[in-house]
Amino acid sequence: MIFMSKFPFKTQKTAQKVSDNKSTSILLQAWYIRQVMAWVYTYTTIWLKVLDKIKNIVRDEMNNYWAFETLMPSLAPRELWEITNRWDNVDVLFHIPAANNKEYALNPTHEEVVTPLMWEFIKSYKDLPMCAYQIQSKFRNEKRAKSWLLRWREFIMKDAYSFHADNKEFENYYEWMKQVYSNVYNRLWLWNDTYIVKADWWTFTDKYSHEFQVKLDIWEDVIFYDKISKEAFNKEIAPCIIPTPNIKDNELKERQDIEAIWVIWVEALSKKLWVPAEKSTKTMMFDADWKFIVASVRWDYDINTLKLQKIIWCKNLKFASPEQVKEKTWSEIGYAWLYNLPENIELYIDDSIIWLTNFETWTNKTWYHSINVNFDRDVKEPAKYYDFKEAKLWDRNPETQEIYEVFKASEVGNIFPLETKFSSAFNLTFLDENNKSKTPLMWCYWIWVSRLMWVCAEYFLDENWIAWPEQIAPFTNYIVIIWEENIEKWIEISNSLWLDKNEIIIDDRQNVWFWQKMNDAELLWIPNIIIISPKTLEKGWYEMKKRWEKESNFINL
Amino acid sequence: MIFMSKFPFKTQKTAQKVSDNKSTSILLQAWYIRQVMAWVYTYTTIWLKVLDKIKNIVRDEMNNYWAFETLMPSLAPRELWEITNRWDNVDVLFHIPAANNKEYALNPTHEEVVTPLMWEFIKSYKDLPMCAYQIQSKFRNEKRAKSWLLRWREFIMKDAYSFHADNKEFENYYEWMKQVYSNVYNRLWLWNDTYIVKADWWTFTDKYSHEFQVKLDIWEDVIFYDKISKEAFNKEIAPCIIPTPNIKDNELKERQDIEAIWVIWVEALSKKLWVPAEKSTKTMMFDADWKFIVASVRWDYDINTLKLQKIIWCKNLKFASPEQVKEKTWSEIGYAWLYNLPENIELYIDDSIIWLTNFETWTNKTWYHSINVNFDRDVKEPAKYYDFKEAKLWDRNPETQEIYEVFKASEVGNIFPLETKFSSAFNLTFLDENNKSKTPLMWCYWIWVSRLMWVCAEYFLDENWIAWPEQIAPFTNYIVIIWEENIEKWIEISNSLWLDKNEIIIDDRQNVWFWQKMNDAELLWIPNIIIISPKTLEKGWYEMKKRWEKESNFINL
Repeated sequence: MIFMSKFPFKTQKTAQKVSDNKSTSILLQAWYIRQVMAWVYTYTTIWLKVLDKIKNIVRDEMNNYWAFETLMPSLAPRELWEITNRWDNVDVLFHIPAANNKEYALNPTHEEVVTPLMWEFIKSYKDLPMCAYQIQSKFRNEKRAKSWLLRWREFIMKDAYSFHADNKEFENYYEWMKQVYSNVYNRLWLWNDTYIVKADWWTFTDKYSHEFQVKLDIWEDVIFYDKISKEAFNKEIAPCIIPTPNIKDNELKERQDIEAIWVIWVEALSKKLWVPAEKSTKTMMFDADWKFIVASVRWDYDINTLKLQKIIWCKNLKFASPEQVKEKTWSEIGYAWLYNLPENIELYIDDSIIWLTNFETWTNKTWYHSINVNFDRDVKEPAKYYDFKEAKLWDRNPETQEIYEVFKASEVGNIFPLETKFSSAFNLTFLDENNKSKTPLMWCYWIWVSRLMWVCAEYFLDENWIAWPEQIAPFTNYIVIIWEENIEKWIEISNSLWLDKNEIIIDDRQNVWFWQKMNDAELLWIPNIIIISPKTLEKGWYEMKKRWEKESNFINL
Repeated sequence: MIFMSKFPFKTQKTAQKVSDNKSTSILLQAWYIRQVMAWVYTYTTIWLKVLDKIKNIVRDEMNNYWAFETLMPSLAPRELWEITNRWDNVDVLFHIPAANNKEYALNPTHEEVVTPLMWEFIKSYKDLPMCAYQIQSKFRNEKRAKSWLLRWREFIMKDAYSFHADNKEFENYYEWMKQVYSNVYNRLWLWNDTYIVKADWWTFTDKYSHEFQVKLDIWEDVIFYDKISKEAFNKEIAPCIIPTPNIKDNELKERQDIEAIWVIWVEALSKKLWVPAEKSTKTMMFDADWKFIVASVRWDYDINTLKLQKIIWCKNLKFASPEQVKEKTWSEIGYAWLYNLPENIELYIDDSIIWLTNFETWTNKTWYHSINVNFDRDVKEPAKYYDFKEAKLWDRNPETQEIYEVFKASEVGNIFPLETKFSSAFNLTFLDENNKSKTPLMWCYWIWVSRLMWVCAEYFLDENWIAWPEQIAPFTNYIVIIWEENIEKWIEISNSLWLDKNEIIIDDRQNVWFWQKMNDAELLWIPNIIIISPKTLEKGWYEMKKRWEKESNFINL
């Protein structure tokens, strides 16, 4: 029970514009949060109540499906992270220098802690499946803490780790976890706009690797959704084909090599050469694990390096240096294409170029373009076209030919496989039914708890308020006392309403206008506003206004 | 609700001896905890339940007395800690190197965060008093993580910060907070053995600076308790007088200077010189803020530098170097005393030496002692005697002359003044009743939440178990199902008992002996054990055994 007369974190009369983001402005105005440094916040009492309610929903659902809550430490010795070879290879890992020349990791995730914890416990196939989780602050040494919900340095996460005897056993378990996620987002009233999105995690298998994304206009992930197949893909990995197929020209024109000094951008180029973007091409050179490769897409697309990397199946894919380009193509960087290219270089051509005729390309000669280039005649038609273009609006799903629905979304959770990466590193084994030693498979389940709070704030944003659903509203009942004399008596009456005392704000402030109290109740979005006044009390009533209803009710005491 | 058939953190048949400490062995055996590194633990589900219950008791009591819960971040920018001049001066502060040449503090305490948070809120005396708290993991870069509960690198703490217009207003508030503490320890059944101990915090005033210590044989703090005045002191600051006064000899013997090469320790010395320890003295030389001083106590006492520092009222007190000693006394280190000492050196003599006659002392000459030294005759009687000896068993309280009760205890909380150190540094001001700008006083209130868990475990240690009180037992009810066929039916019956589902463990394990199940219930110390068997069920009964009672009860379903 909070008495407003004593409550320090009072609402402000005007919202602070800190971003284009209205929900944050309201959170600041209503004193839910205060920033300590970029994207690191103090939660005041009100925000903490929302956090606790969301945590309890997550906890409740996890517990229902045989996941067991634990609390692992934030500090871990450097040695644990060296066992998995991640001390130097996870760039967001904070390294903490400590007394006696020790170093600790400030864990951004807890595979290095949970896996050795299981040594004692996972001994037989009978001990599997098994899942431990925690809800806890995580830390990431982000180069640039990004706006909103991405790339925070400190945030609260639910991270769960499961262990399995084999894939089949896991598949059953996966269904449970998917149920947990759907239950959680359902209870938060987000489920109708939550998409299970295929995503790419590290370089592990992508089966059973999913993001849970809430459709929200202002957030940064872009989702490609196929209404027919109900499949959703993160832009980062969305397979795609161009909206309408390239049409072959009837006549193959004569190739021309044209000098175009300082004309680099496609708009200027197409103006000069009279070639539309759809008939131009774009080529990049890459260093793929020290192998030199060339990749081309239609000018109006970008190369998605993640998709390309998967095709080449290489560990490190980076742009070739100007020196490498010059060495291989004898031209400055930016003039490469398959035409005129030395024969020993591997070519990857995106299917956006399929059937293209009379097209434009750079020509491996500084300042020179070629137009009216054609396959077979000028360049050998490739044996295979690939899909490594970055998907765009109006692109289609290659499987169903359906045009994607494209929208922004915010990731609120994910599930991804760890395979045996960590169980192998820590020598975690169990005996199977035949008494043979095996390494358990691991899976990982994250729910971005603190991000969920911000997503809810934005998702439930009304014209003027954050219209929290009752199950996560900071408090359920706001009791307005409008006649201040004999305040003890009114408080006594409030107590007699038999409400959960953790769910009550009593606005007992003296010398504060009735409408100011009502405004605060509305700004904080407390679902039930109870008004105790001498007038109605005479009749033995109190007034109850539910935020979702227009009219008040008068209820017998 | 936990089903034992699925529960991973099973008890072990034998306790692991990890220390002389029995309660930890039980915590390990019953899988409450696992160590990640020295004194950094993972909490499994069971320990987490105890933590949550203790947290909720603390939270509940704090909320009742107008303290408001918040959650401040663990990371803070270096700049905040520089404002208070603590970045380089708090030796346990972890400095975290971060991307873009930034540095963060991993907060061991949150004055640097909470004080600027109040800028927006504390504007008038009407906004005071005000108190914000949080329950959160804290981090300390301890050189040597000490055994048990002291000096951990990561632990959970309740830290509260209050702001006050003046001392008088604070004094009222202090009474509330003392009530909170007594309520918390009372609800944990610790209050009868909790002592409010005077302690020294930094160099601030010691009024209203208290530690709360639970009497426990195995812990490291030593408490001096006066049964008459009910005052308790930490050994670090306990004022004391010697048990029986020194008795003047009737005859003053002739002083002798004796060479005693390589005889340094008092036992050897007293043997050689035939002088008992009570007639020997010990003198140390100090550098007190660059002033050279000499302090003497009776040989059987140690010098308590904290007490001495308070007497001298200096910032830095350290032992003088051998060079300094030689320069001042012309002898090697270890031979100093007031006899023969140059006149310009300040002397401090402890009252353990008062009335001493015919006593022994080093004599400012290498290898030389003097015996039968006497005041007035050989050395000028000091104008004043001080009390800077370290208190020992049988010492008395100078105020009451009462012999102290001395016992070991563990600190579970404290209250101490921050005065205006932080509010000044952050320029936090308010307008008083006369519209004058003033700096608020601050106080600080810690409860060592995770340490409390360990203290409870030790405090409630029975012959074989940790006999948790029901309010903090990990679960309240342990349901043993003893006939495994048709297990769904028994679970259904369990459900029908209308128990809080968060408080139930159902032991539905198949092929596990009844007595093993009972043993586990007892090892985990679940207060109510409910046995569902076909036999009693026939009669419409179930069996309930309360851990605190000898006999079972049979209860109608």
